[in-house]
Amino acid sequence: MTTDAGQNCVVSKTARIGENVRIGHNCIIEDDVFIGDGTFIDSNTIVRSGVTIGSESFVGANCIIGEYWMDFCRDRKHHSHPLNIGAKALIRSGSIIYAGSDIGDNFQTGHQVTIREKANIGNNASIGTLSDIQGNCKIGNYVRLHSNVHIGQLSVIDDFVWIFPYVVLTNDPTPPSDNFVGVHVHSFAIVATGAVIMPGVELGQDCLIGAGAIVTKSVPPYMVAVGNPAKVISDVRKIKNKVNGEPVYPWREHFSTYMPWESVGFEVWYRSLDLDEKKQYTLSDLIAEPSVC
Amino acid sequence: MTTDAGQNCVVSKTARIGENVRIGHNCIIEDDVFIGDGTFIDSNTIVRSGVTIGSESFVGANCIIGEYWMDFCRDRKHHSHPLNIGAKALIRSGSIIYAGSDIGDNFQTGHQVTIREKANIGNNASIGTLSDIQGNCKIGNYVRLHSNVHIGQLSVIDDFVWIFPYVVLTNDPTPPSDNFVGVHVHSFAIVATGAVIMPGVELGQDCLIGAGAIVTKSVPPYMVAVGNPAKVISDVRKIKNKVNGEPVYPWREHFSTYMPWESVGFEVWYRSLDLDEKKQYTLSDLIAEPSVC
Amino acid sequence: MTTDAGQNCVVSKTARIGENVRIGHNCIIEDDVFIGDGTFIDSNTIVRSGVTIGSESFVGANCIIGEYWMDFCRDRKHHSHPLNIGAKALIRSGSIIYAGSDIGDNFQTGHQVTIREKANIGNNASIGTLSDIQGNCKIGNYVRLHSNVHIGQLSVIDDFVWIFPYVVLTNDPTPPSDNFVGVHVHSFAIVATGAVIMPGVELGQDCLIGAGAIVTKSVPPYMVAVGNPAKVISDVRKIKNKVNGEPVYPWREHFSTYMPWESVGFEVWYRSLDLDEKKQYTLSDLIAEPSVC
Repeated sequence: MTTDAGQNCVVSKTARIGENVRIGHNCIIEDDVFIGDGTFIDSNTIVRSGVTIGSESFVGANCIIGEYWMDFCRDRKHHSHPLNIGAKALIRSGSIIYAGSDIGDNFQTGHQVTIREKANIGNNASIGTLSDIQGNCKIGNYVRLHSNVHIGQLSVIDDFVWIFPYVVLTNDPTPPSDNFVGVHVHSFAIVATGAVIMPGVELGQDCLIGAGAIVTKSVPPYMVAVGNPAKVISDVRKIKNKVNGEPVYPWREHFSTYMPWESVGFEVWYRSLDLDEKKQYTLSDLIAEPSVC
Repeated sequence: MTTDAGQNCVVSKTARIGENVRIGHNCIIEDDVFIGDGTFIDSNTIVRSGVTIGSESFVGANCIIGEYWMDFCRDRKHHSHPLNIGAKALIRSGSIIYAGSDIGDNFQTGHQVTIREKANIGNNASIGTLSDIQGNCKIGNYVRLHSNVHIGQLSVIDDFVWIFPYVVLTNDPTPPSDNFVGVHVHSFAIVATGAVIMPGVELGQDCLIGAGAIVTKSVPPYMVAVGNPAKVISDVRKIKNKVNGEPVYPWREHFSTYMPWESVGFEVWYRSLDLDEKKQYTLSDLIAEPSVC
Repeated sequence: MTTDAGQNCVVSKTARIGENVRIGHNCIIEDDVFIGDGTFIDSNTIVRSGVTIGSESFVGANCIIGEYWMDFCRDRKHHSHPLNIGAKALIRSGSIIYAGSDIGDNFQTGHQVTIREKANIGNNASIGTLSDIQGNCKIGNYVRLHSNVHIGQLSVIDDFVWIFPYVVLTNDPTPPSDNFVGVHVHSFAIVATGAVIMPGVELGQDCLIGAGAIVTKSVPPYMVAVGNPAKVISDVRKIKNKVNGEPVYPWREHFSTYMPWESVGFEVWYRSLDLDEKKQYTLSDLIAEPSVC
């Protein structure tokens, strides 16, 4: 063990810390933590009992990783649960991630993010600054949440979904109640800034929700919905880039930055997947019906 | 005094700390703080001069309690004022509460909450993650603010109000100006996600404001208002649960989780109150006129 | 050097710290930092390599000033760049400001603010609690952003602009893409709560955008635009104060708190500027055409 820790750290003797791990100043590493090789925990950060952080990760300053559940309403006790974060995570400063979640590899957050318990998050997901993941939800692979997105409990977000700032996925049809119904966002859907999605709504694969839309009914695949209440006004495949007149949707055929098809294009990548690989993604049979309008 | 403090703490000799208080690592407890019996102050938290925190409370990590006023615009000085927080508070990590407010018992916050000075907050209030209470406002008993709610100065929120994420109560009719007029939300009103309430508007008892509504005029009791600008479209008493067809409003007759009538129902609880108890709540004469439509 | 530092601080020997500087507890001051005379760095705050903070400033507790760039997506390295903050700054607790920006004098932030790299911010700017400045943008003199404002990359905000809570300046016309186009907000414009401004839109001088507006087209000077999608409905010069019937816009003729014309009024101040002074501001030829409608 070759830990390089700064000043004023409090590191439990039961923490298992890999090779070439760096720890900043004033850090608190509690019991039974496991930190993979080559990971950097920056100053003032607290890693609570039962957390596993994969190798080659970076956890910024002032974070709380593995925050305990505070069920004070009923029993006024702390509860510790495991939290697993995969390899090569980049968790930016000021973020709070609860115990009791599973998060894949190449995870990335902005600053001051909150992720509560029972969040099941895939690989290569990215959650922007100030986003508030309420827990008890599923977020797929390569999902990109921009800043200040609010994901209510019971939400299901499939792979390759983009959600822009100040979007809210709600869950209570008759507030206040205890009868929550989550939103389901299907693969490749795009939800623009400030949209609010009402409880139980399904956003179809490749659909586009306009900025500020209040979405009260499910939106079929490829449809564009805008307004309050949101109405379907078009098909994404009719949208052209205003500068060059080229089609821009379905976006997977026109955009690939950081996507697994970055070097080859979506169709070549998709056809190259074997059945086991396809099972890792939530994808419809996208190639059989080519995207003609 | 049986204080159990972690490492690297800086605790003033004039702080009065009760029995069985636990203090984490790296905490700063300034002069003249009073901490009640059995309270837990978690690591990295700062409690500033003049703060009282009641017994059996929990203050999460990375909080600043009693933040001083920084009137730097004019005089570039700090000012310390008392801050009183009642018993059994649960203040989650990363929250900042200013000096100069009074907060009742059983207070609860999410993470990264900001509460500025001159906030008068009742008992059993709950303020969600990232909410921003601008101070100089009144928040009643059993008020529930969900995540990321913005309460402008001069707002008045009566008892048993529910406000959902990204709602803003504004206060400037002709921005920018110094002529603020607050919003008044009456008891049992519900404001759904993303609604903006314009200055001086009154939201009547038991009314329901729809998601994304921009409310420019006062809404009478029991009315449902939606849209931009918001219009009254219905009466809450006509709304049925879509699953079982049962009425759901007024919600106090159908929902009781964590409410004082949890075991007996609203009407029995309300009739059992004596006059002194009724004075603690902002309630109209709710029983005389039964909720027929 | 007369540094007054609290307990458990880690201060680099290469940091240059002015006269009468106060540093709280648990602070980390990294290499090559310069802190001007009379400045106060509060507890738990990190000032990273290469930061300059001007004299007579205040940096609240739990801040990270000069946060390094984490280009982990590509090269998994930290990069340090200079950050210059002028004199008399007031940076409230919990804020994170990246390396690689230039910020003028009399800068002010609320709490938990995030400012990313390549932000060019003038003098006397104020950025409210929880606002999220995405970097690579320009913010002029005397700009006031209220709480929870999101400024996308490539935004340009001229002098004396007011932006209210939960406003978003967007930048991607066909999300997701790499073809960003910023919003340009001209001097004296006012954007009310919850408005979303679409990519490439220009908001004309002295215009007023209503609460919750979704602005898809540019708005001419002095016009009032509201709704989703926003439409021009009036001229600001027709708006009267509801209480006293007086005109309230252009606001520079009716409001002066903290403005440079506070004691003399806008026109006297403006006429008194010489050519060099005028160059400091982004102002049209405001006096030649008096504000008749």
